[in-house]
Amino acid sequence: MTDTIIKIDLNKSAYEHDNVHNRWHPDIPMVATVKPGDDFIVECFDWTGGQIENNDDASDVRDVDLTKVHFLSGPIAVEGAEPGDLLEVDILDIGAFAEQQWGFNGFFSKQNGGGFLDNHFPEAQKSIWDFNGIYTKSRHVPGVEFAGILHPGLIGCLPSRDMLDMWNTREKELFDTDPERTPQLACLPYAETAHMGRMKGDERNSAAAEGARTVPPREHGGNCDIKDLTRGAKVYFPVYVDGAGLSVGDLHFSQGDGEITFCGAIEMAGWIHMRVNLIKDGMAKYQIKNPIFKPSPMVPKYDDYLIFEGISVDENGKQHYLDTSIAYRQACLNAIKYLTQFGYSEAQGYAIIGCAPIQGHISGVVDIPNSCATLWLPTDIFEFDIQPNANGPVKHLDGSVDIPKAPDLK
Amino acid sequence: MTDTIIKIDLNKSAYEHDNVHNRWHPDIPMVATVKPGDDFIVECFDWTGGQIENNDDASDVRDVDLTKVHFLSGPIAVEGAEPGDLLEVDILDIGAFAEQQWGFNGFFSKQNGGGFLDNHFPEAQKSIWDFNGIYTKSRHVPGVEFAGILHPGLIGCLPSRDMLDMWNTREKELFDTDPERTPQLACLPYAETAHMGRMKGDERNSAAAEGARTVPPREHGGNCDIKDLTRGAKVYFPVYVDGAGLSVGDLHFSQGDGEITFCGAIEMAGWIHMRVNLIKDGMAKYQIKNPIFKPSPMVPKYDDYLIFEGISVDENGKQHYLDTSIAYRQACLNAIKYLTQFGYSEAQGYAIIGCAPIQGHISGVVDIPNSCATLWLPTDIFEFDIQPNANGPVKHLDGSVDIPKAPDLK
Amino acid sequence: MTDTIIKIDLNKSAYEHDNVHNRWHPDIPMVATVKPGDDFIVECFDWTGGQIENNDDASDVRDVDLTKVHFLSGPIAVEGAEPGDLLEVDILDIGAFAEQQWGFNGFFSKQNGGGFLDNHFPEAQKSIWDFNGIYTKSRHVPGVEFAGILHPGLIGCLPSRDMLDMWNTREKELFDTDPERTPQLACLPYAETAHMGRMKGDERNSAAAEGARTVPPREHGGNCDIKDLTRGAKVYFPVYVDGAGLSVGDLHFSQGDGEITFCGAIEMAGWIHMRVNLIKDGMAKYQIKNPIFKPSPMVPKYDDYLIFEGISVDENGKQHYLDTSIAYRQACLNAIKYLTQFGYSEAQGYAIIGCAPIQGHISGVVDIPNSCATLWLPTDIFEFDIQPNANGPVKHLDGSVDIPKAPDLK
Amino acid sequence: MTDTIIKIDLNKSAYEHDNVHNRWHPDIPMVATVKPGDDFIVECFDWTGGQIENNDDASDVRDVDLTKVHFLSGPIAVEGAEPGDLLEVDILDIGAFAEQQWGFNGFFSKQNGGGFLDNHFPEAQKSIWDFNGIYTKSRHVPGVEFAGILHPGLIGCLPSRDMLDMWNTREKELFDTDPERTPQLACLPYAETAHMGRMKGDERNSAAAEGARTVPPREHGGNCDIKDLTRGAKVYFPVYVDGAGLSVGDLHFSQGDGEITFCGAIEMAGWIHMRVNLIKDGMAKYQIKNPIFKPSPMVPKYDDYLIFEGISVDENGKQHYLDTSIAYRQACLNAIKYLTQFGYSEAQGYAIIGCAPIQGHISGVVDIPNSCATLWLPTDIFEFDIQPNANGPVKHLDGSVDIPKAPDLK
Repeated sequence: MTDTIIKIDLNKSAYEHDNVHNRWHPDIPMVATVKPGDDFIVECFDWTGGQIENNDDASDVRDVDLTKVHFLSGPIAVEGAEPGDLLEVDILDIGAFAEQQWGFNGFFSKQNGGGFLDNHFPEAQKSIWDFNGIYTKSRHVPGVEFAGILHPGLIGCLPSRDMLDMWNTREKELFDTDPERTPQLACLPYAETAHMGRMKGDERNSAAAEGARTVPPREHGGNCDIKDLTRGAKVYFPVYVDGAGLSVGDLHFSQGDGEITFCGAIEMAGWIHMRVNLIKDGMAKYQIKNPIFKPSPMVPKYDDYLIFEGISVDENGKQHYLDTSIAYRQACLNAIKYLTQFGYSEAQGYAIIGCAPIQGHISGVVDIPNSCATLWLPTDIFEFDIQPNANGPVKHLDGSVDIPKAPDLK
Repeated sequence: MTDTIIKIDLNKSAYEHDNVHNRWHPDIPMVATVKPGDDFIVECFDWTGGQIENNDDASDVRDVDLTKVHFLSGPIAVEGAEPGDLLEVDILDIGAFAEQQWGFNGFFSKQNGGGFLDNHFPEAQKSIWDFNGIYTKSRHVPGVEFAGILHPGLIGCLPSRDMLDMWNTREKELFDTDPERTPQLACLPYAETAHMGRMKGDERNSAAAEGARTVPPREHGGNCDIKDLTRGAKVYFPVYVDGAGLSVGDLHFSQGDGEITFCGAIEMAGWIHMRVNLIKDGMAKYQIKNPIFKPSPMVPKYDDYLIFEGISVDENGKQHYLDTSIAYRQACLNAIKYLTQFGYSEAQGYAIIGCAPIQGHISGVVDIPNSCATLWLPTDIFEFDIQPNANGPVKHLDGSVDIPKAPDLK
Repeated sequence: MTDTIIKIDLNKSAYEHDNVHNRWHPDIPMVATVKPGDDFIVECFDWTGGQIENNDDASDVRDVDLTKVHFLSGPIAVEGAEPGDLLEVDILDIGAFAEQQWGFNGFFSKQNGGGFLDNHFPEAQKSIWDFNGIYTKSRHVPGVEFAGILHPGLIGCLPSRDMLDMWNTREKELFDTDPERTPQLACLPYAETAHMGRMKGDERNSAAAEGARTVPPREHGGNCDIKDLTRGAKVYFPVYVDGAGLSVGDLHFSQGDGEITFCGAIEMAGWIHMRVNLIKDGMAKYQIKNPIFKPSPMVPKYDDYLIFEGISVDENGKQHYLDTSIAYRQACLNAIKYLTQFGYSEAQGYAIIGCAPIQGHISGVVDIPNSCATLWLPTDIFEFDIQPNANGPVKHLDGSVDIPKAPDLK
Repeated sequence: MTDTIIKIDLNKSAYEHDNVHNRWHPDIPMVATVKPGDDFIVECFDWTGGQIENNDDASDVRDVDLTKVHFLSGPIAVEGAEPGDLLEVDILDIGAFAEQQWGFNGFFSKQNGGGFLDNHFPEAQKSIWDFNGIYTKSRHVPGVEFAGILHPGLIGCLPSRDMLDMWNTREKELFDTDPERTPQLACLPYAETAHMGRMKGDERNSAAAEGARTVPPREHGGNCDIKDLTRGAKVYFPVYVDGAGLSVGDLHFSQGDGEITFCGAIEMAGWIHMRVNLIKDGMAKYQIKNPIFKPSPMVPKYDDYLIFEGISVDENGKQHYLDTSIAYRQACLNAIKYLTQFGYSEAQGYAIIGCAPIQGHISGVVDIPNSCATLWLPTDIFEFDIQPNANGPVKHLDGSVDIPKAPDLK
């Protein structure tokens, strides 16, 4: 029976767990040690540490404290790992806890985090998704059921001191270009809510003041939100500190490419089963800067897609120069509009492309001035036919069910 | 036997063909008429109209006249098509001409067009790819062979007058923000080299002065360079003028997502076999702004990938805000670096990710400030093993073969 | 949290469980009741009821009592189900018990059950396979690891009285054509070891005397050993008695098409999560005699295969007439021979094609006198390259490890 | 431009072509020579040599002379090939002739060849299939269209003298067990209609008297009718004579596993583009008896299947012992019955499972006494929904179109 090397108690606060942390810093003490070749299980909080509940009230999503995220389990020391190595991680399995077979998806208020389409969905909304074996469906989004691609949204090794400094410097420079912006341009260190694991006292305080926030993906991987890092995948992470210091969290039951709603996937607490190995000096041997990985042989195959194009002209008709994010935003908006013709609300359409295993492809990045991006919507996840035909769409939903919204407070 | 409704003569200039045009304008006369349900074949020049030759000298790529591109076959009238309809196009097959079983891939000089990585590859280079049935390989890029995903880089219907005006307005606005930039921010109308099909005299001249250039993808589709519009796919195009006016060209034997080298795919002359149908009033019924499509049941399956991540910190270490193009550029550079460890030159690595059926995925677009993009490199296209392992990479190529380069003239 | 409607205790004999049975009979009492739309979990013994242990001694496989198999959990009543309906079963998930993360594969002695290649492997052998998340590997078969396609080998509804009689009649007729044969031609009813669930006394005894053995697949499904009935699949079973009476067991972690070793798959105890619905009068509406099903969207994708052909000329050179079983046997023998060139023993080769997700295809059944069958061996499950090349195969194994064998007694 | 090394003239009889033969014999003279590494094109008659026409009269299928088949193009000598080598053949592409974009499927009369279901379809019928790029459909089978998996039904190298003798001996032994049977148990040598290529006079006559018929697949491959030997596949053939002597023919546009209708696939004339290489002494190195192959990266992906089970109890209720052919026949009959509920005639159902890319899987071959086989019917090839649901099937066809039948003359 595989060892569970990090256990958590969902009835206690994440802050009461010293095997959990929510900032990146080279000095966070290891909480467990494994050897190359070992496999082991790690339990994880949901990314918010339990701030969101299974109910029909979105006020918890509206009021979430985003300085507290993401709660990560670790760091785990790997014997023999040294800076410059590659840490090979086999993701063997992932699951929700038996007693908590559900997850949540949220749109943050534009006042508090926002999201990819926050100009269109400025207020907080929340949908709850129940897990039924490999499948999930939501009482807030009728007519759709799909198999999950379970994955950790956030995984990587501790940064070195130099890397941490580089992160803080470059992100501060960006932040300073528009410090009043909402949402902000970057999440800077914030000591008050930092959870530095087993660090204590002054050491904790000074580390908390400079610990990198967990929001962005960076060189070490981190919050990549890549759905393809699913069970069965093999990932090669750069190592920057002795022992590597692998941390993981932000488990997702399913997510579309882009994690467009920001809160973002179907978020859940649960466990992850991993196996580690080392490629000594692998960073130089293979010229690795960011993690590389191999996909799983086992992912849901939804092979019939309806594909939406978007170009880098924004919703106001303004022409942008090869901006792939704007192109993808247009593809998202096109897909949502399409779904409304079958009876979905726009919010439900947004939740579907955020939660379901849609794909986002970069199609053209050189044909000035327009980038072209495509959103691949699997048609088999719907209980009814959403393909175009000469007769036009049929409204299958009567609008009686929608996704709960919590208006901003003032 | 299926009718070939547009025939071309490769021994004559594209300008001598009145069933070809290289600008978008609502008044270009139809050159053929088909009925809903018909299938037919259309012959096409390569996008440059034959400017590039099968040899080892890249000066033709360096000196290409980009104001002449792309030469499109059409427009084709579809009986009964009216503005607001959707034109359903089944792409039934695509091929190179029997006597011209090769294509080219080029990097444009940064002085003349550039490309996605033109800061790294500022001078013109050209590789030639031979076609062997469904496979292709290049004498300039040893050790790699793959099955093509043949597709038209450029296809769509004529714009209406209003749409044309909108295009010209918004692109001019962008251009005017930095009119001296090289490469330029947008390709504006340019009458001199415009080929307006069967238009003549003053009518031709005034249309040429405002005809939209074919470079960017736009609402009607156009130069989407989506490799997935391959034989077997079904595409739904918005119709803006009576008769629809379907034009097509820029055939590719293969291309990676993004068409990153700009010249871009494995470019070829050839033919395309299509079938058309109409969904009357389909744009309103389905709320369609850009084309949508369904993928082919028949595409090369390369299911073992090595996946490279990139984030929106550029190669100089500068932090950008959720810029997915920059994130994808980093993933591209990471893949190229990796391939050099097996003996490829950087230029060969660039050509491989431009030509082979790599995928580009949008992975994270909300985790401020970093977008995350991934480049999926199929491992089975290589004659040798490119997977990472504990022993490190083996150099399989000795550097004796590289991609011809033509230095800029001064 | 989903209800577990049938629980078992692995520390007690299957015979002590009244929610388990090992014969098919219309009068076996239901042990649980569910409604259409319900989902629920059922726990299952391994098919032998715990006769085989995790050790390196194959004597338990040699001495297994095959009159006791298969232990099935059920029958489960579905409210409203009537003869002639179709019972739609969604297989939502399957797993091994947390405390028993292993399974076994065996070759039976030709004296006691045999198998597809028992002339080549006449004595009992056993390999143990450890589960690591979605993957499995065996200490007895080095160099191979693969993701499982978990499935119930045996599932179906209770037969009606008429169907039971038909089964017994036709199988007895076959048996009587060669009653002394070893292995026997059919497994006839055998009261002594029959477990009739909650039946008691005379009723039990008379039912036990006629209860159909569970070995063959029949009209109701039963022991189909179809690996594709995996989690995510949807199956439509004919209903023959009021309440349907769904029973299930013989869980497999993985299996190749054909279950050629008879004991057969990687056999395990565990649990299965299902959801049921009804299509009233579905057998007549759709003219269904045997179950039909839809595959899962989620199965391991091993897309690079080496494919072995076999024809219906047996290993002694004798020509048979369109005998597809013999053709498949030759394909199996060809694959085993091939694997020995890389260092595997023939027994290891046999275990690999029995356990791994190989495919068996019927290729030609009309080209007299030879059937043609193909065995598809996934190459990516091996740690080394097994593809043919000009240099010839490399022996990767030194023969120091093999599959334990227990010689026949006497 | 690739050389076409064997050209044919469809306006002349196959017998007038000396680069064609219809028997296997070691002494048939080579008609072309290639070197390892070469690629080349070979033109082929349809298997009957043009006996079947594109019309609505099945009398040509009824009256076909099956002693004349199959007309093969070759043999082709490969320089340096010796007995014991493996001939590696890359199938690079396959196509129909531009002027003959159609194929035929037939059921032979039980009096003349029969087929897998000849007890159910005893009289000759014929359907014509038109090719539209990668797709095909038939005026005789409405509502179905699919992409072809083009392949040669028949390909292999010349047998040695010893192998030829072995074939003739074992097939004669089988034939002699029931020499009066119709259809016959085996096709023995038949000199009258033998086409021995460039052999002449007495040499031709004595070779014709012993030349093996081309109907069955044998050790060298031959008439395997494996749809997966499609363009993109790589096949390794045993070599038995100096120069190998590769011959090919019986091109198919599409076929279901088993080629159940015997005439059998969608049969066509056309061309095949191949590349050859050698593995010296490969038969011993890899212990190869029958050909092995690797599948193409490029085959139509129809991933949504409805799967029909069959067991080895025949249509009269008789129990057979592990007879996989009977099990597959039941699965075929079950699929045909199912399709009739949507309006197809049984003959149309038979043609669909014979022509479309269905799969036939061997599911269980050890669960005495019943084999279990499955037929995988892709649902996306139908223009309407054929999935089961609570409302029952909808008849989409009115029976006004059926497959032409030619009654036996008697």
